[in-house]
Amino acid sequence: MTQIVVLSGGMDSATVLGTVMAEHEPRQVVILAFDYNQRHKRELDSAKALARHYRVTYRQVPTGVLGHAGSALTGGSRMVEVPEGHYAEDTMAATVVQGRNLLFASVGCALAEPGDSLWFGVHAGDHPVYRDCRPEFWNRLDDLMDDAYDVSIVTPFLHRSKADIARIGHGLKVPYELTWSCYVGGEEHCGRCGTCVERAEAFHLANVPDPTTYADDVFWREVVGL
Amino acid sequence: MTQIVVLSGGMDSATVLGTVMAEHEPRQVVILAFDYNQRHKRELDSAKALARHYRVTYRQVPTGVLGHAGSALTGGSRMVEVPEGHYAEDTMAATVVQGRNLLFASVGCALAEPGDSLWFGVHAGDHPVYRDCRPEFWNRLDDLMDDAYDVSIVTPFLHRSKADIARIGHGLKVPYELTWSCYVGGEEHCGRCGTCVERAEAFHLANVPDPTTYADDVFWREVVGL
Repeated sequence: MTQIVVLSGGMDSATVLGTVMAEHEPRQVVILAFDYNQRHKRELDSAKALARHYRVTYRQVPTGVLGHAGSALTGGSRMVEVPEGHYAEDTMAATVVQGRNLLFASVGCALAEPGDSLWFGVHAGDHPVYRDCRPEFWNRLDDLMDDAYDVSIVTPFLHRSKADIARIGHGLKVPYELTWSCYVGGEEHCGRCGTCVERAEAFHLANVPDPTTYADDVFWREVVGL
Repeated sequence: MTQIVVLSGGMDSATVLGTVMAEHEPRQVVILAFDYNQRHKRELDSAKALARHYRVTYRQVPTGVLGHAGSALTGGSRMVEVPEGHYAEDTMAATVVQGRNLLFASVGCALAEPGDSLWFGVHAGDHPVYRDCRPEFWNRLDDLMDDAYDVSIVTPFLHRSKADIARIGHGLKVPYELTWSCYVGGEEHCGRCGTCVERAEAFHLANVPDPTTYADDVFWREVVGL
């Protein structure tokens, strides 16, 4: 039975990976990453670095079909600006990618053997913005995938905050310096997009060190009111 | 709002297409076909011929991830023989492709706009062999896809037999001579594999003409006891 960890290269799925590695041998674990023409393709370098760190198999699947309906996170003719500010704001709807989590789970399921588990780093802070991150979505998907294909979905942080994740990951010695969150995808984290603000806030609320260099390291404090 | 018809090139999804065309203009309809390294890739020629017949957009998506767990329907290192006999037999389990319908639906969903519908030709005769063809699978998938992405799944033949489909399609003048069922994928239908037997039986039970040339046109009668 293989533990397949769907890894974006960000801190949430990296912490899922750290959780899995605390209980399994490297040969029982496979990382699954996706190249979906995301603007922040930089995150795939982080996913590979995490695979090297934990000495586990890395599998990257290209998917040409995401971003069709237009999203700030994907390239192509219907490119949209990445919104700045707090992650929970209405403007973050521009970062929705139609069908994304369903497709990631489906590809993972197709690559799985019966009995395998698929791990996802979805958390409670994702729920307001992304409808495919809500508990009812994952519960239904787990039920149908288990019934049809004997593959289980595991979402350990579904009801946890991102600050909880930072705290748990700090305890597990997850190498956060290797992870990438920024949606803009430059040389360093911008510090202004929704996911940079959320990242910095999470480390702050968890009261653990943030190893990230932000191009703008003041903005997030203003946004969250510090 | 676009009607996206997932088309294999076989008679079930061709009849779904005929049903959709009876109620929609060609510009409202898109055919979605999959190249998943299926042994019977010949069916994609049929899918294209059906698109030409109905003058609708044809979109073919390659998926490299299916067949990983080994199936009689896919190529690659874990190739398995196509079983002969009746479709409902235990041996037909070899034709299961892990994750297939979930992946097809997910790709359709990623390509859809909110408000679009995804049509599938699944029918009651598929239920014993394919767990991802059963009503609870499709009902759950429709619920989660509708909630997360505003995309609906339509399965008009979910509780119909293949003979019902042949009868309905005959009334709709579906060009069955353009369709392809055989899993072996030769020059003509083999007449011995599960889906050839099922096809011939369906036309017989529906009491409508079968335009198919079977390499062995006696075997199916023995299997179904005629």
